[in-house]
Amino acid sequence: MTIYQHVALASRPKGWPTLENFRYEDKELPEMGAGQVTLRTIWLSLDPYMRGRMNDAKSYADPVPIGGTMEGGAICEVIASNNDKFAVGDIVVGRTGWATHGIADGADIRKVDPNAAPLSTYLGVLGMPGMTAWIGLNEIGKMKEGETVLISAATGAVGGLAGQLAKAKGCKVIGVAGGAEKCSFAVDELGFDACLDHKAAKDGRELGAQIKEAAPQGVDVYFENVGGKTLEAVLPNMNMFGRIAICGMIAWYNGDNVAEAAPLPAVWSTILTNRLTVQGFLFPDHQDSAAAFFKEVAPMMAAGKIKFRESVAEGLENAPEAFLELLNGDNFGKQLVRVGEDPKG
Amino acid sequence: MTIYQHVALASRPKGWPTLENFRYEDKELPEMGAGQVTLRTIWLSLDPYMRGRMNDAKSYADPVPIGGTMEGGAICEVIASNNDKFAVGDIVVGRTGWATHGIADGADIRKVDPNAAPLSTYLGVLGMPGMTAWIGLNEIGKMKEGETVLISAATGAVGGLAGQLAKAKGCKVIGVAGGAEKCSFAVDELGFDACLDHKAAKDGRELGAQIKEAAPQGVDVYFENVGGKTLEAVLPNMNMFGRIAICGMIAWYNGDNVAEAAPLPAVWSTILTNRLTVQGFLFPDHQDSAAAFFKEVAPMMAAGKIKFRESVAEGLENAPEAFLELLNGDNFGKQLVRVGEDPKG
Repeated sequence: MTIYQHVALASRPKGWPTLENFRYEDKELPEMGAGQVTLRTIWLSLDPYMRGRMNDAKSYADPVPIGGTMEGGAICEVIASNNDKFAVGDIVVGRTGWATHGIADGADIRKVDPNAAPLSTYLGVLGMPGMTAWIGLNEIGKMKEGETVLISAATGAVGGLAGQLAKAKGCKVIGVAGGAEKCSFAVDELGFDACLDHKAAKDGRELGAQIKEAAPQGVDVYFENVGGKTLEAVLPNMNMFGRIAICGMIAWYNGDNVAEAAPLPAVWSTILTNRLTVQGFLFPDHQDSAAAFFKEVAPMMAAGKIKFRESVAEGLENAPEAFLELLNGDNFGKQLVRVGEDPKG
Repeated sequence: MTIYQHVALASRPKGWPTLENFRYEDKELPEMGAGQVTLRTIWLSLDPYMRGRMNDAKSYADPVPIGGTMEGGAICEVIASNNDKFAVGDIVVGRTGWATHGIADGADIRKVDPNAAPLSTYLGVLGMPGMTAWIGLNEIGKMKEGETVLISAATGAVGGLAGQLAKAKGCKVIGVAGGAEKCSFAVDELGFDACLDHKAAKDGRELGAQIKEAAPQGVDVYFENVGGKTLEAVLPNMNMFGRIAICGMIAWYNGDNVAEAAPLPAVWSTILTNRLTVQGFLFPDHQDSAAAFFKEVAPMMAAGKIKFRESVAEGLENAPEAFLELLNGDNFGKQLVRVGEDPKG
């Protein structure tokens, strides 16, 4: 009998989650069956979508049951195998969740090359957030050279790569982020043309005026990660036939800032008058784009052209606190948890 | 010196327009110049978009100036011509506005065949509203055979044809209209599978439950003409990857029903979770589709397969009252004003 550790959903949050909604505890690992492999988690990815899984509401995926393991993508090492396709020592991306170990069928894991890039990047620029950035800009936002792209949560795991991909495409790129440090990073390191601090703007109107100043030609593609006052600020700046790719709306996940949201009739009117296209998208629907994504981004990564930043929490027991910081925008870049030793250092 | 009559915008409405916002008066017709023609208006079209032109705000088109002629499409007869392409007696579609006569350059009028269909239909099923219906369903809504299409303002000039085109495509078609008489007409005459009376539903939630009953399989395409509680009712019924084609939002044009609108965060969340595409569109951007539209609809019209209904106001002086009724949903079908004698009867 093998004992491992996981973080269970102890209770459902009302509004903002707290540490009491999580429980770090021992658990018994099931027997490894035919065709299965046993995994040791190295890196766990923390992402805003996990907030939705804590609610007792069917969204695009089922909620995590009370007492169940919090879901999540992870980089793992194969430590035992009943599957010909995976050998002990292989590094894979899987969905073991917030747990030190897990059992996987071959179908739910994918080998990665441990020598091509740092392992953690397969959860970031080379993983789900990176592909989300690519899909949102290309398939949903349909960005074209010379257009102006506005990216909220500009230094986040998705936004940071989105900005660099849009610059590489020849777009003018405006970011919105929380705090002067993040804004400087977006411009100085990631190469954004400008980045506006939403925390320094007293409301959506003031932020909107700053966007207008930074992008007097208007915005063609808005990569929407946040909702809230940033959305209110961007809308009046959208150009005719602009596209809004809705990837997330973290400002509203915990039920606050809702009353202050822009009124729907005004938003609907802007969509009609400016002939906007507003489209929601989720990474799992676009797996077919992985090849095109890697073809473009892997060489950029190999050439050292992609900048990224990570926030690392040490130890699975610290995952809940890191997740709360992520929801609050207190982290910086891709949020990871180092669950076990990384063989690549 | 020739005197004609027009309806001027006397003042800008605050909220709902009143008769005092309009002024019916004599005006002097300019001299007909080289290449120009003189037109006599037969039929004037009244359409909801005209409400927007009464506001002092740049929308997708310039506002009508105070004292200027209210804009509008019309069927006219050429009564004098300095243009080789147009002979006296020709029937044309033009934009003379709310006026008994007008001067036009050749570029802003288009000849129609007076023997192919009743003249008034060139302002309805064979005109801008008809093309709007076709564009919304095909180019924006991307309806496919077997899908469920929901159409608000179902017996209006746009909605009535939209429903028939969707049925012809093999879709299940649900209408929403105001009043039992309109709903019966939609089902019995236009062939909708069901039509729900928004006036009989106390709120969007109740209407939404009725939509769920009429379309338990969900809605794939929503042809949005109204906003208000109908939008609130439709949203929770939208299927994954559904499309919302925003054509109008008459419930909000006069500034009421705005406070009761669904909250933006909930709408945004539905768009993301259900991966919806919401797109605003305006007829003038899609003139290239006219050929495809006529190819499909003209034979249906010639074969007597298209049903339509008209509300006719007699005399230009009655245009303002008819327009107010249109905004209030008191008319039934395509709203027209008979400005002058129709040579076809």
